[in-house]
Amino acid sequence: MSEVVVLKQSVMAADEKYAHLVKNDLKKRGILFVNIIGSPGCGKTTLLEETAKRGKFRMAVIEGDIETSRDAERLAALGINSYQINTHGGCHLEAHTIERVIKEMPLDDIDVLFVENVGNLVCPAEFDLGEDFKTAVISTPEGADKPLKYPMLFATSHAIILTKTDLLPYVRFDMQMFSKDLSSINPVVPVFEVDLINGNGLDSWIEFIVQKIKEKRVN
Amino acid sequence: MSEVVVLKQSVMAADEKYAHLVKNDLKKRGILFVNIIGSPGCGKTTLLEETAKRGKFRMAVIEGDIETSRDAERLAALGINSYQINTHGGCHLEAHTIERVIKEMPLDDIDVLFVENVGNLVCPAEFDLGEDFKTAVISTPEGADKPLKYPMLFATSHAIILTKTDLLPYVRFDMQMFSKDLSSINPVVPVFEVDLINGNGLDSWIEFIVQKIKEKRVN
Repeated sequence: MSEVVVLKQSVMAADEKYAHLVKNDLKKRGILFVNIIGSPGCGKTTLLEETAKRGKFRMAVIEGDIETSRDAERLAALGINSYQINTHGGCHLEAHTIERVIKEMPLDDIDVLFVENVGNLVCPAEFDLGEDFKTAVISTPEGADKPLKYPMLFATSHAIILTKTDLLPYVRFDMQMFSKDLSSINPVVPVFEVDLINGNGLDSWIEFIVQKIKEKRVN
Repeated sequence: MSEVVVLKQSVMAADEKYAHLVKNDLKKRGILFVNIIGSPGCGKTTLLEETAKRGKFRMAVIEGDIETSRDAERLAALGINSYQINTHGGCHLEAHTIERVIKEMPLDDIDVLFVENVGNLVCPAEFDLGEDFKTAVISTPEGADKPLKYPMLFATSHAIILTKTDLLPYVRFDMQMFSKDLSSINPVVPVFEVDLINGNGLDSWIEFIVQKIKEKRVN
């Protein structure tokens, strides 16, 4: 284990109390909180844009990026309640930042809060932001070997979104290997295959979130 | 700046002496050392496979992955001198590991040592492994907004490889924006546009490395 990993673990312990604050706050308000994690360019922002366009629930988004406010601007252009965090070098979001941000955001009429984490399959998977669950996004051009290469993310996510299925005829993506490897580390996780350009597969994902919103309110 | 970033900086300072040891060792042996950094699934391993197949120089590869030895096995299958490091959660390679590994690897007849860093655009860009230069790899499906989103990597790399140009007709990749944004942070860096499936554009990249090997031996 590298020194950075050891240091990171002490930071994670200190950050846990903020994750609890976030969790309790959003529970009181009945807001579902989903932490979206994926590689740079896998389609996280487009997924959120297309999800918002369907209008099945009221959503807010916290955007995490090293630099630039491009993603929050894309969402704001669609009228989505969005907030940009720039980590200026930080490779993931931490709960103490989320705790501060949700105090500033107008969340009164919101059903679900999405965090789009920094584009990275490693560190964001290790940090609890107080979310109800993590969702891993992977795109077909990245290749089918990712679940075993980044097992923490794929093992701990409660939903997997496979994007860019429209590119399947043009890329080498071994769907059988992907399903087999994913099953070996997370046998029951739902996988949503989506094509964000044409909208194929999005309805199932949106239905899943609608169901989770209902469950959150009951519990 | 997050706590993790601050902690990381102290680790980086401690790691600098190892970067110097690596640099001095490889300089004595006249071996060019290139640190390859890119997102998961951008084509780093395939780039190295296709580079090796052209046979223009004698190369060795250190593979960095969180888990699995799949990448080193792919290279070994082509007869490439390769060594797998598993970071078990670590999001980047560090110089002290490279320093240990190059003592164990047979490097006597080698012109260039490539490190394929952990798939991540953030942390690997911040750590000096003792390399002659970093090379950023980005694939067209990731989108053209990456240079400004991950400025440290794109500003400090001495070569940029744009992979999967065969997918340009099927993805939204704004080449003009990419070139403009990249120029704004790194005006003189060479960009190699490659299609690793058909081999288009590889010759220029290989010529670039041949030239760098010559320069290394002169200096």
